[in-house]
Amino acid sequence: MSLVSATSKPLVPSRAHYGFRPALCHNARIMTATTASLVPSVNRQFVLAARPAGMPKESDFRLVEAPIPALASGQILLRSMYLSVDPYMRGRMTGVRTYADPVNIGQVMVGGTVGKVVQSLNPQFQLGDVVSGYWGWQEFFVSDGKGLQKLDTRIAPPSTALGVLGMPGMTAYFGFLDICQPKPGETVVVSGAAGAVGSLVGQIAKIKGCRAVGVAGTDEKVAWLVKDLGFDAAFNYKTTENYVEKLKELCPNGIDCYFDNVGGGVTDAVLPLLNVRARISICGQISQYNAAKPEAGVRPYVFLLTKQARAEGFIITQFMDRFAEGIPQMAQWIKEGKLKYRETVIEGFEKMPRALIGVLSGDNTGKMIVAIR
Amino acid sequence: MSLVSATSKPLVPSRAHYGFRPALCHNARIMTATTASLVPSVNRQFVLAARPAGMPKESDFRLVEAPIPALASGQILLRSMYLSVDPYMRGRMTGVRTYADPVNIGQVMVGGTVGKVVQSLNPQFQLGDVVSGYWGWQEFFVSDGKGLQKLDTRIAPPSTALGVLGMPGMTAYFGFLDICQPKPGETVVVSGAAGAVGSLVGQIAKIKGCRAVGVAGTDEKVAWLVKDLGFDAAFNYKTTENYVEKLKELCPNGIDCYFDNVGGGVTDAVLPLLNVRARISICGQISQYNAAKPEAGVRPYVFLLTKQARAEGFIITQFMDRFAEGIPQMAQWIKEGKLKYRETVIEGFEKMPRALIGVLSGDNTGKMIVAIR
Repeated sequence: MSLVSATSKPLVPSRAHYGFRPALCHNARIMTATTASLVPSVNRQFVLAARPAGMPKESDFRLVEAPIPALASGQILLRSMYLSVDPYMRGRMTGVRTYADPVNIGQVMVGGTVGKVVQSLNPQFQLGDVVSGYWGWQEFFVSDGKGLQKLDTRIAPPSTALGVLGMPGMTAYFGFLDICQPKPGETVVVSGAAGAVGSLVGQIAKIKGCRAVGVAGTDEKVAWLVKDLGFDAAFNYKTTENYVEKLKELCPNGIDCYFDNVGGGVTDAVLPLLNVRARISICGQISQYNAAKPEAGVRPYVFLLTKQARAEGFIITQFMDRFAEGIPQMAQWIKEGKLKYRETVIEGFEKMPRALIGVLSGDNTGKMIVAIR
Repeated sequence: MSLVSATSKPLVPSRAHYGFRPALCHNARIMTATTASLVPSVNRQFVLAARPAGMPKESDFRLVEAPIPALASGQILLRSMYLSVDPYMRGRMTGVRTYADPVNIGQVMVGGTVGKVVQSLNPQFQLGDVVSGYWGWQEFFVSDGKGLQKLDTRIAPPSTALGVLGMPGMTAYFGFLDICQPKPGETVVVSGAAGAVGSLVGQIAKIKGCRAVGVAGTDEKVAWLVKDLGFDAAFNYKTTENYVEKLKELCPNGIDCYFDNVGGGVTDAVLPLLNVRARISICGQISQYNAAKPEAGVRPYVFLLTKQARAEGFIITQFMDRFAEGIPQMAQWIKEGKLKYRETVIEGFEKMPRALIGVLSGDNTGKMIVAIR
């Protein structure tokens, strides 16, 4: 069984990246001393060098070296395997507290991570264990184990812990199902539809019996959504002149649910097509993240009023205590072939800044990840 | 006990307007034939003459005469006593279906009404019964009784059926309590705070233990809100330069609930002050009703997203089946002195167009009503 979308070139660079098998783990455990001696004493990290004006530049980040301290009792040393690259990271670079503290100048950039235990003085973690966590843009991390999730690499490639079975997957699952409360036969429009979250939302909409209409930024993405993922329709907003007319054509029964990752003109165009009691789930506003202040646009209130409609923002952390419900369901849908996912993997730790600029520019299809050899 | 705000000049022109006492009704019943002979055979109505561009003009309405047909069995003839004047009527003058059908050119303008039974061939209705209904801008109306509510004039003046104990009261009650779900200690901002609905919302907020902050359009209204109705603070948006700074000053703990009757710049200014999980109830957008299309403004999505906040529009009809819960509660609060209301009463049927222009211009304090002698 392949858990990876069957439609494309290999989605993760090689099985070696997540191919820990029990036997190998066992060997690793025996070789503790040897493995530890292979661990370098120097860590590499990306720290925030400057608060960006508009789109971040590579010079807004600085690659620094830091010593890896000797482990104290109860600690483990993790070597990063995959670093998550997500649009929300742009918000942390701004010196303003939103729902989370900003990253300060000189601090290591935050982010989701998957890594391998390469030294352990903690009986809960064995050498070779693969875990997900939130240690940010660095090659190594010393942890006391708190906040780490052990991954069963026999069930799914570990990179999925950053995507379909991690934060983006749960964002799609709860942000769509809980906030939009879709009903069979309804029309669901998704912006950023080819991204890590949007591509899952459209498929969940199909699973729930809805009509799924995606908005994406290249013809290739549009084709992927319709041909591979089963969206009923999609369009390229970069080559479409009149979004209202296009949406009208693709949503002949109006719009009941709108899952918004992007904001801006597409969101403006959704408003006049909302049906009575429509629900808008505001997941992201990637078109606005580089703006110094929100640009002027259509105020939605008259539309929300006349259609008795609702717009609601959410942050995935509010659903954290229900991940144990969402992750198995997503895994089950993958197993049943109802849910596909794709990863855009960039090789090399030093590519992190470029990868973030890429995800803010729509370079990714599906989940953007940096893999570290 | 006076149910009318004690703070001002007489709020309804005279008790004679709603002073039907059982004895009088009894007499009236005996005098059926005589009373009937007093009923004129000609009705006067205001019909829509033209769809307004911007603020309606008096010439957008036409006063016409129509014959009053002889009653068929089961019918009653109603003489209008009070006509409701509400901002939503502007929307019906536009040739677009929103949540209700528009009024067509030549049709009688719609609206809530209170009237007296002056002829009856329906055993359910006695001469002198006072009822509320929705027969629009006309002096007489022939009804089969459907959709009428008999009013107990011993409990409250009948004009309250158009205000605090009618649609505006229920709009305040359900639109605030159901959609904002206020909690004690929270801060509630109300725009259009001196209007029929807003003035009640702020008082309900106080009853629920919240801090109530009002936005209104004259210093007199502001003084009324704070001194008579118990709002914690209020400001005059017409003489305030920086709404954000003013709101920051009056809402030191941020804004948890925003009940919006107005839209526009005040609503824009509320957004950056929203607290986590804030709720916006969109009741009206009076500042936008005369606009050909929604004017550009601040899009709220980034604020809703980062604060996990919700904006929801509603139409009072969605709560219709729960009025039996809301009306007694409002009446009880009035009786306990916790809820005050004011009516701005204009005398004379022919003043209806002017009264509607007035309510769209903020001429009213509390509920705008036209009384017919």
